[in-house]
Amino acid sequence: MEKKLKIGLIGLGTVGQGVVKVLAKYDDIEIVSVAVKNISKKRDVEVKHLTTSVFEIVNNPEIDIVVEVAGGENVFEALKTAINNKKHIVTANKELLAKHGSELFDLARKNKVVILYEAAVAGGIPIIFPIKSSLRANEFSAVAGILNGTTNYILTKMDEDNIGYDECLKRAQELGYAETDPTGDVEGFDAMYKIAILSNIVFNKRIDINKIYREGITKITSLDMKLADEFGYKIKLIAQAKKMQDKNNESALDIRVHPMLVSKKRALSDIKNATNAVMLKGFPVDEVMFVGPGAGEFPTASSVVGDILAIKTEIHKNDDILPMSVCHHSKFANQINIENTVNCYYLRIKAINTPGTIGKIGLACGKYNINLSCILQKGVNEDGSATIIVITEECLERDINLMIKSIEETSEIKVLNRIRVM
Amino acid sequence: MEKKLKIGLIGLGTVGQGVVKVLAKYDDIEIVSVAVKNISKKRDVEVKHLTTSVFEIVNNPEIDIVVEVAGGENVFEALKTAINNKKHIVTANKELLAKHGSELFDLARKNKVVILYEAAVAGGIPIIFPIKSSLRANEFSAVAGILNGTTNYILTKMDEDNIGYDECLKRAQELGYAETDPTGDVEGFDAMYKIAILSNIVFNKRIDINKIYREGITKITSLDMKLADEFGYKIKLIAQAKKMQDKNNESALDIRVHPMLVSKKRALSDIKNATNAVMLKGFPVDEVMFVGPGAGEFPTASSVVGDILAIKTEIHKNDDILPMSVCHHSKFANQINIENTVNCYYLRIKAINTPGTIGKIGLACGKYNINLSCILQKGVNEDGSATIIVITEECLERDINLMIKSIEETSEIKVLNRIRVM
Repeated sequence: MEKKLKIGLIGLGTVGQGVVKVLAKYDDIEIVSVAVKNISKKRDVEVKHLTTSVFEIVNNPEIDIVVEVAGGENVFEALKTAINNKKHIVTANKELLAKHGSELFDLARKNKVVILYEAAVAGGIPIIFPIKSSLRANEFSAVAGILNGTTNYILTKMDEDNIGYDECLKRAQELGYAETDPTGDVEGFDAMYKIAILSNIVFNKRIDINKIYREGITKITSLDMKLADEFGYKIKLIAQAKKMQDKNNESALDIRVHPMLVSKKRALSDIKNATNAVMLKGFPVDEVMFVGPGAGEFPTASSVVGDILAIKTEIHKNDDILPMSVCHHSKFANQINIENTVNCYYLRIKAINTPGTIGKIGLACGKYNINLSCILQKGVNEDGSATIIVITEECLERDINLMIKSIEETSEIKVLNRIRVM
Repeated sequence: MEKKLKIGLIGLGTVGQGVVKVLAKYDDIEIVSVAVKNISKKRDVEVKHLTTSVFEIVNNPEIDIVVEVAGGENVFEALKTAINNKKHIVTANKELLAKHGSELFDLARKNKVVILYEAAVAGGIPIIFPIKSSLRANEFSAVAGILNGTTNYILTKMDEDNIGYDECLKRAQELGYAETDPTGDVEGFDAMYKIAILSNIVFNKRIDINKIYREGITKITSLDMKLADEFGYKIKLIAQAKKMQDKNNESALDIRVHPMLVSKKRALSDIKNATNAVMLKGFPVDEVMFVGPGAGEFPTASSVVGDILAIKTEIHKNDDILPMSVCHHSKFANQINIENTVNCYYLRIKAINTPGTIGKIGLACGKYNINLSCILQKGVNEDGSATIIVITEECLERDINLMIKSIEETSEIKVLNRIRVM
């Protein structure tokens, strides 16, 4: 009989318990020990050994693979120790990889171990491995997706049930889709970590998350949803990265996370509830899209266990295992500032005194070379003000900001929301 | 410098030329020789050496990998020789794999070489490798998809432009989407080969293509498209395989290819033109979907070259290369007969004398335990006949056939089309 593969697990929350349940059917894989915060907490699964010390796991000479599903930056030191102890790593920790991935991968290469992280982006959807295997002949020009299930659930409910953001957030919290402190999801941090990880492997560059433009969904109103729908769009939190040239004609990356009006003709507009989707564009493949559950006990465990099995197949070899899992990119990307990007914009404008307003908006747009694609005023509100919706053609972010500043100089016009259009 | 990887290419049509173009950027991969039918044919690319003999390729001791993009069964003997000569195989040949895959994989295992075939199913979409890698912890219950771009293009145009099948086929032929003899596509053979290959790896069983139920799209009319649309469906050629139990409670597979009414709420209904999509359902991942170009010079080359690069990374190793590419399933699936499957049905019925017709249909359905979900008669046609649309709840295929036979016994009622509902 082959030697059993020995696992040390860090974290026994929803995903950790899923991993324990799924691994139960593999006679040749054994979870030796699990590190948790609170040993006495009631759980769904039984494990052989619990500890509160992650270092007990990463220093245990018996363990072949450290599986980390605790999340957060706190496990950084422990995982470095694990790698120095020649243990392979399987992790679902997007925050850690987005912030300290380069250091971890360098250390892993030095120690001839691998770090696999299929579960860190888009939960159960196979995306990391396909990019590195079947799609590896490609040069990618863009990656875009719905990478956060919580916000997509909230936006879907706002749209379908025509209720406000706060009410939807409360519902999402009650259903366990959103955390008590929802900041990480609703302000776009989670999606930012994921697009950083994706950009890293899609464009072979190191990514500085501090240079990623990030905007959450808290300013989206059900009125915006309704108006967008009338114009043929759905509002989604889109994480995207695109290859472009900066003003010096140097190759650059435009990476960002923010809400967008997505045309109903695009498949991404139709991704509902907690589902995730990732769209890749490259040559020679053209455009491919992957859709599936972005989180959850079992879907995430599917990816974690897939990674464990990938290592298991290769671990007995004398040569480098899984050479394609190694990250060779040592250079940082040239990340473009949002001010220098080109977008179409949806503006919801409130005008106190309607006569002449459309003219003022039109003049300001002309001044900054912004062409309008749609403009709509629907009657006059009860308070005498008017709501005017403008959708622009492509223009520089810097110019739309100047245009908005210029029309807001007169106190009668106020831009209540500005959302980019996909 | 590392030794160059030497390729022998069989076939230099659209896909073959794409492979040559994409491989051009790899200095360490060399196409040594290409087998073609007609040497003097004008082509887009230049290659080092052309031959009309596939055996010159497969017996060339210099060649490491035989890349076969010629298609059809004719290359069977040549590929067997290649494998016996210890050459790895990369192929896009769905017909060959669906008909003779088992023999080829057995031979490859014996000779310690691999056969990779990402391009054989769904062109540029990564599907074979993700199933075998990231998703390998899963037990799948179903796979379904739109696997033939030609028929999906025809059905999309019939729907969008409200024109008939023949006209759409002609257009598809003019655009190069359909061949002069379109049988392989429009009668569902191509999709059948692909679902056989997918079923094989998804369910780990050998598949007998002669037991796959197959029905093409030639009987679909634009009236069916229009009526389906009114009821909230699109008509698509669906290839699918599902795990089920046969009447003796033995585990069985229900594999088939036929047109279906797909609810507009399902993502598959929205897959347009030549795009392909594959949906997988399993535990623990739940449901994932892959969408992208199902054919074409470059998308297919993306998959072929991805396979070549996968072998290149591993070929220097002393151990078995790419162990997960080996097929271990030696047992044939227990394939269920279509008569024993359960479906919902759309029936388009013509009734000559309308009074009492609905009653007759209702009685016949009652007799065979078939519940109706929708029934609609829209006025009376110019010739005095009526068109009646029935959508049933789930029932046995055998029962719907008996019911149809029973209502057609009276000469006034004729079922003009019967389409299963997804």
